Amino acid sequence: MAEPEPLRVVYRLSCRPEEDGFERIRAIVLEQTVEIPAAAVSLDLERRVVGTLHSIERLDKRLWRAVVDYPQLVVGLGDLPQLLNWLFGNISLYDGVRVEQVEWPAEVLERFPGPRFGRAGIRSLFPAAAHRPLIVGAVKALGEPPAVLAERAGALARAGFDLIKDDHGLADQSSAPFSSRVGACAEAIASANSKTGGVTRYVPNLTGPVDGLEARLELARSLDIELVMVAPWLLGLDVTRRFCATAGVAVIAHPSFAGAAGRADHGLAPGLLFGDLMRIAGADAVIFPWAGGRFVLDETNSREILERLEQPLGELAPSLPIVGGGLPVDREPPELPLDSALLFGGFLYAAPDLESAARAVVARVERRCGASEPKFRV
Amino acid sequence: MAEPEPLRVVYRLSCRPEEDGFERIRAIVLEQTVEIPAAAVSLDLERRVVGTLHSIERLDKRLWRAVVDYPQLVVGLGDLPQLLNWLFGNISLYDGVRVEQVEWPAEVLERFPGPRFGRAGIRSLFPAAAHRPLIVGAVKALGEPPAVLAERAGALARAGFDLIKDDHGLADQSSAPFSSRVGACAEAIASANSKTGGVTRYVPNLTGPVDGLEARLELARSLDIELVMVAPWLLGLDVTRRFCATAGVAVIAHPSFAGAAGRADHGLAPGLLFGDLMRIAGADAVIFPWAGGRFVLDETNSREILERLEQPLGELAPSLPIVGGGLPVDREPPELPLDSALLFGGFLYAAPDLESAARAVVARVERRCGASEPKFRV
Repeated sequence: MAEPEPLRVVYRLSCRPEEDGFERIRAIVLEQTVEIPAAAVSLDLERRVVGTLHSIERLDKRLWRAVVDYPQLVVGLGDLPQLLNWLFGNISLYDGVRVEQVEWPAEVLERFPGPRFGRAGIRSLFPAAAHRPLIVGAVKALGEPPAVLAERAGALARAGFDLIKDDHGLADQSSAPFSSRVGACAEAIASANSKTGGVTRYVPNLTGPVDGLEARLELARSLDIELVMVAPWLLGLDVTRRFCATAGVAVIAHPSFAGAAGRADHGLAPGLLFGDLMRIAGADAVIFPWAGGRFVLDETNSREILERLEQPLGELAPSLPIVGGGLPVDREPPELPLDSALLFGGFLYAAPDLESAARAVVARVERRCGASEPKFRV
Repeated sequence: MAEPEPLRVVYRLSCRPEEDGFERIRAIVLEQTVEIPAAAVSLDLERRVVGTLHSIERLDKRLWRAVVDYPQLVVGLGDLPQLLNWLFGNISLYDGVRVEQVEWPAEVLERFPGPRFGRAGIRSLFPAAAHRPLIVGAVKALGEPPAVLAERAGALARAGFDLIKDDHGLADQSSAPFSSRVGACAEAIASANSKTGGVTRYVPNLTGPVDGLEARLELARSLDIELVMVAPWLLGLDVTRRFCATAGVAVIAHPSFAGAAGRADHGLAPGLLFGDLMRIAGADAVIFPWAGGRFVLDETNSREILERLEQPLGELAPSLPIVGGGLPVDREPPELPLDSALLFGGFLYAAPDLESAARAVVARVERRCGASEPKFRV
């Protein structure tokens, strides 16, 4: 019988002057598996459990690149918390360890159903927008009453936005309790649709205490809502996985708190954090910051995320990339694949009139897109 | 009526040469509340929702310290995911932002029950150990069959360890499925207790898919287990909160993945990450790395965590500090308050005989502790 394929991991290690990449990677493979000193590891355990160094090279004075193969045994079956533990559990408490990339064996991936609707499912809701990226807006701001939030949602819908999501900080605060604001926004968007003939979808934020998650979903469903948003790193990655598998609506993942785990010299590479892990958790769409906005990711990071959301990953469906993070209204949006979405958030609210500003955004995106072009070019 | 007390946050900001602490803190208070540009913030919203700068000082060329008061409205009521979002949500995607400390209003804290058993509850299980810190061991290693794990658990129990926890990487892998290994370890420890007259407690690791959490707890309860372990950052912080409130057993929090959010120049200070947030989530005991082990925390960090676990925090009970992280067998343990615990993990397994090595550890701790001493001194 053939050996099962290993989980192959690429690490980038920043070493101190007195350190050496070989020692560090040895410490890592023990830490992430048997968690006992090398002297206590039997040959049998070494062979069956501990990761095996596949290659290592020194990139410069301090930087090393190491590739390690781990047996599937380590991660167990369909256990996302243990997967995360193996990926960056105790080594999160080290320094200068970046997990760059993982090659996932089919047997590991097939335990996770992945996105249930995915990019194609969300896209299919907007047949008239097939020639361009979807246009996403945000209902703001925390502190406003439901009527004001609803009026703004209505304005974005009348302007022709495809998806209108809650600001992720809108939870269940007293200024706009969950049920009243979600009801009001859904109604405002439905009313706009009935006037314009549009198909704008409202995406309420369901992030909040896990005890109330089902009730919030039920309320959304009772309003015929087809897409919802959660922030997996606030709600819990594994709660998100279960939710995506069972909610019956499409789920958009918000990046709040994710930056904690994705530093340039220590953490998970953006392609893992916003790409692989989100698809494994089953997010149908993933919001992530584009370079040049107000967040720390650069263009290489953003392109890497785009790729990981659409490249083959076992049998898991691609997720829709939603590019946000402070895209300025007055600057050209980045070059993106057609099958993506552009999020225009706060900047719209600085305009004298929200609806006119939103119309201008839609017109600009439309102008730049011909059905004959394979890419959305600026 | 008096204004409700604000949430007061201390930030440490690392600025680039062209940046200024004033601009940065302004961006942060908008990002973490209304998420719209300053130009779009009405005076009313500014007053009711946006954080207010209390003080700011330049610490050196690049470093600033800023203190901000946020209205309670922002975090909502008893909503831990939103609390985390407000604490380090979108700003996790910035660079050089460290949340150093929070002053929590009583109204915010009282929505969380906190540790149900806490330090005192766990301590009360070990009346014969009142003169010294508790001694904690770990069942290792991943890859071994249940019989081997159980034999080791028994050895640590016979040596007189108080608490014996699973290695946090022991999940439900095929080498030792959850139910068989937990049953075997519980039996081995019970059998050791019946021989020695001891009261050693077994602490199984319940981290794993959220769907199975209740079933794993049920199994533990059926074995009369009184303490369990979860890794909140793997399982989900809010799932942990709900679990602690309802499980009916004491819960020990493991630090796996926490390091992702706790970097020295960006993230949450150790006192928040391993202290305040763990008590708010309801962890009865918290494992964290001591300085000088194999993890990145220094002595100041470790002492800060100790403090935050026992200092007043509203009405929340103190959590038992469990100091681990590669404490060497052959080195003196750190000076700790009596009401703490020492975790001896992997190093014991490098000894020729686990039970003798464990006995030596117990003897050394006992030797250093007289009932008359207020502190465990080395």
